[in-house]
Amino acid sequence: MKTWKGRVVVALGGNALGDTLPEQMDAVKLTAKTIVDLIAEGWQVIVSHGNGPQVGLINNAMAALSRENPRHPNTPLSVCVAMSQAYIGYDLQNAIREELNRREETKANPVSVATVITQVEVDPYDEAFLSSDKPIGHYMTREQAAFAAQQYGYQMREYGDKGWRRVVPSPRPQRIVEVDTIRTLADAGQMVIACGGGGIPVVRQKEGHLQGTAAVIDKDFCAALLAEELQADALLILTNVEKVALNYGKPEQKWLDQLDPNQIRSYAGQGQFAAGSMLPKVLAAMEFVEDGEDRVAIITQLEKASDALNGRTGTRIVGHS
Amino acid sequence: MKTWKGRVVVALGGNALGDTLPEQMDAVKLTAKTIVDLIAEGWQVIVSHGNGPQVGLINNAMAALSRENPRHPNTPLSVCVAMSQAYIGYDLQNAIREELNRREETKANPVSVATVITQVEVDPYDEAFLSSDKPIGHYMTREQAAFAAQQYGYQMREYGDKGWRRVVPSPRPQRIVEVDTIRTLADAGQMVIACGGGGIPVVRQKEGHLQGTAAVIDKDFCAALLAEELQADALLILTNVEKVALNYGKPEQKWLDQLDPNQIRSYAGQGQFAAGSMLPKVLAAMEFVEDGEDRVAIITQLEKASDALNGRTGTRIVGHS
Repeated sequence: MKTWKGRVVVALGGNALGDTLPEQMDAVKLTAKTIVDLIAEGWQVIVSHGNGPQVGLINNAMAALSRENPRHPNTPLSVCVAMSQAYIGYDLQNAIREELNRREETKANPVSVATVITQVEVDPYDEAFLSSDKPIGHYMTREQAAFAAQQYGYQMREYGDKGWRRVVPSPRPQRIVEVDTIRTLADAGQMVIACGGGGIPVVRQKEGHLQGTAAVIDKDFCAALLAEELQADALLILTNVEKVALNYGKPEQKWLDQLDPNQIRSYAGQGQFAAGSMLPKVLAAMEFVEDGEDRVAIITQLEKASDALNGRTGTRIVGHS
Repeated sequence: MKTWKGRVVVALGGNALGDTLPEQMDAVKLTAKTIVDLIAEGWQVIVSHGNGPQVGLINNAMAALSRENPRHPNTPLSVCVAMSQAYIGYDLQNAIREELNRREETKANPVSVATVITQVEVDPYDEAFLSSDKPIGHYMTREQAAFAAQQYGYQMREYGDKGWRRVVPSPRPQRIVEVDTIRTLADAGQMVIACGGGGIPVVRQKEGHLQGTAAVIDKDFCAALLAEELQADALLILTNVEKVALNYGKPEQKWLDQLDPNQIRSYAGQGQFAAGSMLPKVLAAMEFVEDGEDRVAIITQLEKASDALNGRTGTRIVGHS
C-alpha cells in the first residue's frame, strides 16, 4: 500500500468545469493537471465539485422535453442533480485518468478513478427552506416566469433587467448517504469523485425513505462535511481568486495569508465576505478546522493548488492556536 | 465479514425499470423486493441494468435543448448513457436501501448501496460498427429523420408505418474501465449498481484517451463480462419470460429447463432465438459459463428470480459436463 503525504478533499468551483459540454471537455484538462500535480506530490485526493451551469442545463433540457411530450412530467431537481454528477464525473474522471497515465511518476503506480452518485441528507426543518435564495437555470420573461410558477410551483425572483429566475433553498448538508462507499474506495487508495453539486438533496421520511427535495446544497459546505467524514488532513477550496481579501474590489483591498475562526466570525459580521460567494467558502473552511485538530483548509485559485497546499500562497484557515 | 452463499450478477431488463420517471419509481419497488430476497437468502448481489427508454428520453431532452439554445451543441450519446446511469441508479439504489431497511434480516447487517458510473471499452474494429441495427429514441417523420441525418450525421432506418428511428451499432464489451472500483466495493461486501445500459461505450485512442462512441452495448453481454471479472458464481438475466423457449410463440412452443453451449449453438443456428431479444441473452449466458468452472447462468423473469436461483424454475445454462 502506498504511503500518502496526507489526505486532501478538493472542492472544484465553476471555473474548473466551464459552462457548456465543449467548454467542460477543455476545462477538465487543466483541472486534471492540477489534481494530478497533487497526487504526484504524494497527496491522496478526493474530488468534489460544483454543478451550477450543468444542473441548469439539464433542468432546461428536461423541461423542454416535457413541453414537447406531456407523457413525461417535469423532472425533479434532485434527479437533474443526479444526472449532472454523471455528466461532469464522466469527463472529469477521464481527464484525470489520462493525466495520470501521461506522467511517468503516476503511471508507475496506477490509481483507479471513479464517480459515485452521492445523496446528501438535509434537515427538513432547516431555516433555509423559509427563504429560497439560490438562483438556478436560465433567465425568463415575466410571462415564462408566471407559467413556471403556476405549472410547476416554482418560486421565481426578478433580477432587474435580466429577467426572472427560479430560486431554491440552500439547506446545510447533514449526512452523506453514500459515505461508506466513498470511504471504502479512499481507504483502498482509489480516487473518488463524489458529492458533485453538493450532493443530491434528500430528506429522510418514515421508513427511511429518502425523498428528493427541490434545493441546492452549497458544494463547499458539502466538501467540508466529506473532509470531516473521511478524516482528511486538508480541505482545498479552489475558486477564481488566489486569496481571500478584506474590502474585496475596493481601493483598500487587502489579501489575507491566514485566517482563524475568530477572525472569520468577526469579518463575516462586518459583511466582508459576499453571500453565495466567499462567505460559504470561509464558513465551510472554518467548520472543517474547528471539528478536529491538525487540520488546514485552504482557499485559492485552481492554478495555485499545489503552491497553496505547500504553503506558498492561498489563504490558510487554521484552528485556534 | 459476512459469509455469502455465492456472488451473483443480476442483469435487469426493461420491465424492471419502466419507461418514464413515475413508472420507474413504481417499478423499482418490485425490483428492489426481488433483489433483497436474494440478499436475505445469503447471496451477494451486484446489479446491472438496461437503459433503452431512459437513454432515449435523455437523448430527446438534450436534442430539444439544443434546438432551443444553439449555444448547446447536440449531446453525444455516450454522455446521455452516463446521465441515464445516474437517473436510474438514484432511484434503484434508494428502493433497494429502503427494502433492506424494511426487513429484520437485512436491517441487522447493513449493506451499503451505491451507483458507479461505468465506462466499457469496445473494439473500434468490431464488425458491429459496419451495421447499425440497434434503434434508439423516438419515432420520427421522414422530414425529421432527414434533418437528423443531415444535422447530426445520424444513421436513420424506416420502421414501416411507425416512421423512422435512429439506429446505432451494438459492439461487444471488451473491458470494464472502472472494474477495480466495482471489485473493491464488492469485495468489501458492499452492493454496487454498475454497467448501466451496458456501460458508456468508449474506444481507446492514443495516449489512452477514452473517446465516447455513438453505440449501445448490449447490457446482457456487459453483465456477463462483469460476472466474469468479479468471478461470480452465477449470472442471473431477468426478463419478461419465465424460461427460454424453442419455437417461441408457436403452437409447438417448448419451455426449456436447461441448456448447454452445444445446444445453444445448435438452436441459435436454427434461428430459434430472436436477434436483439433472446439471442444476446443465451449467448451472454453461454460466454459466462464457458469462461470458467462451476458456474451457472439463469434466464428467468423478474418475479421468479429467487425461485430460479434456487433451482425451482427458469432456464439454467451450464457448461459442458
